[in-house]
Amino acid sequence: MDTSLRDKRHTAAHVLAAAVQKHYPDAQFGVGPPTEHGFYYDIKFPEPISVNELATLEETMKEIIKADLPLERSDMGIDEAIEHFSSRNQPFKVSLLEDLKTHGTTVLSEMDENTPEESDVSTVSLYTLGDFVDLCRGGHAERTGELDPQGLKLDAVSGVYFRGDETNEQLQRVYGLLFSSKKELKQFLHRREEARKRDHRVLGEQLDLFTFSDLVGPGLPLWTPKGTAIRDALHNRLLSISRKYRMNPVSIPHIGKQALYETSGHAEKFANELIHVQSSYDEFALKPVNCPHHTQIYASKSRSYRDLPIRYMESTRQYRDEKPGELSGLTRVRAITVDDGHIFCRPDQIETEAQKIAEIIREFYTDLGLYGNHWVSLSVRDTNRPQDYIGSEEDWQLAEESLENLSETMELNAVRQEGEAAIYGPKLDYMFTDALGREHQLCTIQIDFAMPKRFGLSYTDADGTPQSPVMIHRAILGSYERFMAILIEHFAGNFPVWLAPVQAKVLTVNEAVKAYAADVFTRLEEANLRVELDDGDETVGKKIRTAETEKVPYMLVIGEQEQENGTVSVRTKGEKQTKTMEIEEVISLVKE
Amino acid sequence: MDTSLRDKRHTAAHVLAAAVQKHYPDAQFGVGPPTEHGFYYDIKFPEPISVNELATLEETMKEIIKADLPLERSDMGIDEAIEHFSSRNQPFKVSLLEDLKTHGTTVLSEMDENTPEESDVSTVSLYTLGDFVDLCRGGHAERTGELDPQGLKLDAVSGVYFRGDETNEQLQRVYGLLFSSKKELKQFLHRREEARKRDHRVLGEQLDLFTFSDLVGPGLPLWTPKGTAIRDALHNRLLSISRKYRMNPVSIPHIGKQALYETSGHAEKFANELIHVQSSYDEFALKPVNCPHHTQIYASKSRSYRDLPIRYMESTRQYRDEKPGELSGLTRVRAITVDDGHIFCRPDQIETEAQKIAEIIREFYTDLGLYGNHWVSLSVRDTNRPQDYIGSEEDWQLAEESLENLSETMELNAVRQEGEAAIYGPKLDYMFTDALGREHQLCTIQIDFAMPKRFGLSYTDADGTPQSPVMIHRAILGSYERFMAILIEHFAGNFPVWLAPVQAKVLTVNEAVKAYAADVFTRLEEANLRVELDDGDETVGKKIRTAETEKVPYMLVIGEQEQENGTVSVRTKGEKQTKTMEIEEVISLVKE
Repeated sequence: MDTSLRDKRHTAAHVLAAAVQKHYPDAQFGVGPPTEHGFYYDIKFPEPISVNELATLEETMKEIIKADLPLERSDMGIDEAIEHFSSRNQPFKVSLLEDLKTHGTTVLSEMDENTPEESDVSTVSLYTLGDFVDLCRGGHAERTGELDPQGLKLDAVSGVYFRGDETNEQLQRVYGLLFSSKKELKQFLHRREEARKRDHRVLGEQLDLFTFSDLVGPGLPLWTPKGTAIRDALHNRLLSISRKYRMNPVSIPHIGKQALYETSGHAEKFANELIHVQSSYDEFALKPVNCPHHTQIYASKSRSYRDLPIRYMESTRQYRDEKPGELSGLTRVRAITVDDGHIFCRPDQIETEAQKIAEIIREFYTDLGLYGNHWVSLSVRDTNRPQDYIGSEEDWQLAEESLENLSETMELNAVRQEGEAAIYGPKLDYMFTDALGREHQLCTIQIDFAMPKRFGLSYTDADGTPQSPVMIHRAILGSYERFMAILIEHFAGNFPVWLAPVQAKVLTVNEAVKAYAADVFTRLEEANLRVELDDGDETVGKKIRTAETEKVPYMLVIGEQEQENGTVSVRTKGEKQTKTMEIEEVISLVKE
Repeated sequence: MDTSLRDKRHTAAHVLAAAVQKHYPDAQFGVGPPTEHGFYYDIKFPEPISVNELATLEETMKEIIKADLPLERSDMGIDEAIEHFSSRNQPFKVSLLEDLKTHGTTVLSEMDENTPEESDVSTVSLYTLGDFVDLCRGGHAERTGELDPQGLKLDAVSGVYFRGDETNEQLQRVYGLLFSSKKELKQFLHRREEARKRDHRVLGEQLDLFTFSDLVGPGLPLWTPKGTAIRDALHNRLLSISRKYRMNPVSIPHIGKQALYETSGHAEKFANELIHVQSSYDEFALKPVNCPHHTQIYASKSRSYRDLPIRYMESTRQYRDEKPGELSGLTRVRAITVDDGHIFCRPDQIETEAQKIAEIIREFYTDLGLYGNHWVSLSVRDTNRPQDYIGSEEDWQLAEESLENLSETMELNAVRQEGEAAIYGPKLDYMFTDALGREHQLCTIQIDFAMPKRFGLSYTDADGTPQSPVMIHRAILGSYERFMAILIEHFAGNFPVWLAPVQAKVLTVNEAVKAYAADVFTRLEEANLRVELDDGDETVGKKIRTAETEKVPYMLVIGEQEQENGTVSVRTKGEKQTKTMEIEEVISLVKE
């Protein structure tokens, strides 16, 4: 039977310890488990080591692997084992054994939950690898030769406290990577390096897209002019696509009465994440969602069946009281700008309305080059438990059928997920895969039979009876913050021209062409391009390198020849060739 | 000496009482003071009267005026006066007299503040007009003939409690108007009628522009699709003008740490109006202004003198805890969407930067047809007290001179207001007069030497030294809510085409042209016009009347002839003629 990669990684931890013991005979060992991509070992070295020492250790590990040594198991009485490690000056192993003896486990969390007075552990297993004997539950390769030394890399070293408790002694944690082959290790290192370079927090600062301020507070991004240009480009694209499907922008405040969220159910749902507001006159909360406000615009007039569908859309911030420790860059924030939308319609309009949303999604993600890199899920009821859901049997059947039909019409191949529907209605979710192979749930089309009823919304039907409308919640890009994080990392900051905060940069070759360069700059600006001018004293080579760092799609180099001919020399980012063009041609090129 | 209009109005109250006594001998009288445009009298009629009774009373009043009766004063001991009114069954007058005897006043608020045990009032004055004797301090015409009966009008009647205390008996308040002449009365009635028709709260509902919800809360307008279309048109116009002057949109959240407002000074300045936010982790407040957040975008990078000016703009909501009783329509709200802007510059850049703002103001208000209906004030220091102001003598001189120069260059004729500057810098304010002759302060260009210092903002000057930038706060339209209220009333809902929420409405003459009308509608929509289609069963006359009520600028009537020729019949709001046009012509017409 093949040894699993996890067992090989566990084995590598033993190999690391054996290598350490060879070079540092006085080293004291803590624990050494496998990890997601390799393994680590917590070790107290006689003197703390640095990353520079890792190469030697890695070399020794590879020799041990090549020597194809066996890992030999032997059992020992627990008191004998304590004596064994104690005599070898291994206090951490002794400590682990004492826990095992007292609590029946070495795992702290298990001790908390289940602390027998007397342990039934009387015997422990030891594994011997060459000269190194380790306390271990097992789960290894039989011989070190099963590991591929080319798939091994010692990666990093950091300081940790024994058992993560800062009242304990400090050890060093040596991290290693182990893959089945050299190729897989290289692939992993490449992907990791890419992810590091693309990290939206790093690129966000480097490209000056957003910032955080201690005075404003954690989880509250401030968008600089460049970041705002991207947000606005996304927003305007959404608006112009949505306009074709007759979605109507509305505008609401960021607070609402506590009673609004008691009616909607969000006071209960968000509980601690709902941020209360201390007005002297009313009990308000910062809105955690936008739907309750939108219901109140619907409710402001009496509506007839002929008025439906009524479609609202808005990009607006909502607020949630996230824990400081859970905040992270743009992916977890307290001020969340949501591209929100709600359609109020009759049950018989669900299919055509949901299709409009699906069309908007298709257009928007096609513009981003992401349509196709996705799959869609259709969450439906658990038909064995119809009593668990809000809304009539007839409405549910119609809604699920509508989404099924839509999936077919739009070739979504939606994967049916039985029992995954919310209690208030079925939904379609779109999952997109980014350039790093990560999957993100971005769009949703959610049918809701419950909220209109909670707010007593109605319309007069053709027969004069009052009816409750169906509400469709929809998200195209979700939250701008999370979407920006994904886009920055997906494009590695190399945004498509329509999104680039600076689409073109005019670069002068020398002082003599400054006036003409300024003229070119103004003409591009007047054509509504996002453009910058660099007419400083540096060499044009330096200017090009700066523009490349800033990831500007087009560099427009202005020399004396360009000035003479009234042209510009266009250089596309990442390319060496330049092309001479008329200014009008440049404008068309940038606008595509 | 001419009797003042106020005294004439006071006299008219006596005349009203005399007329009432004639028709209702058992009426009991409260108080009857003059008001801003006339007078009122609080009266308990034997049976409550309606507005229908006012004509008869007004007629009798006019007769009394024409009879030119004298108002005769007589003094009476206070106990005798109580006896006098008591015997005539005037309990309200008795109550007033008893207050006068006990507290020395009949004014409730004066009693609260200053309640002597013993009053020194021993004698009161009575005025006799024909058969009617009234308790009164005086201030009258000598004879009723001094009033112009043509300037008189009884206006309304409403229920009130004696002395405004709902534990007291209910009286009726009869309101009258009195002007010096028939002409002035007519003018007043016309202006009042205009203001009523234009009231933004009335028109806002009638045109479906915004709404309030009890569940969302008072002072928190919700903008419907039509209202949002106007707001967006204003915003987009501001953006496109500002872009030419290189103002850069930024985007900030709606909360900030308490510490942000302590640093800025707004925690102290707004005190009770600052709305605190109950996060479990940080002390936040809803932003009452936007400048502190914008300083933090400036502060996110090191800046050189070459980077200045740095210009931010943003339309964003800020929040203030206004008292419920002070909230009114859109003019006083809790969620205030501000068109905000801040420029960080060097002192030597103040003039050119302020000029950019003045140019934006000129373009924006020219588009609205309001430029010219304004005057500008220049608030400068009190030069006798230079120690009262923040910033160097040199900077102040430069800043005031810059604004003076700007006033000259832009022909603003700014009126210099000595001592009106804020302690942190001089400013220009623009006051506009609307169609009802009311003046509104709308734009401001405010120099600020203080805030950048409070936040420790700096830039590296040419000589390598750190310097504090100057901050210029600017508002073009101020708050969208107040601006919308002004615009709605100024235009009486007849917005210029570029602002109209619905710019054109396609109206069908009959069923047969429905398909062609839908086609016309789609073509206009695709040309980015805001357009509606009315292809219902009503007559085209009815459809035109509806569109007129909705104040739609262009009605596009589609009959069989238009269908045949591929044209539309264009009717401009308020006109009877129609004009046949090609669809492309209509698009150009609406776009201007």
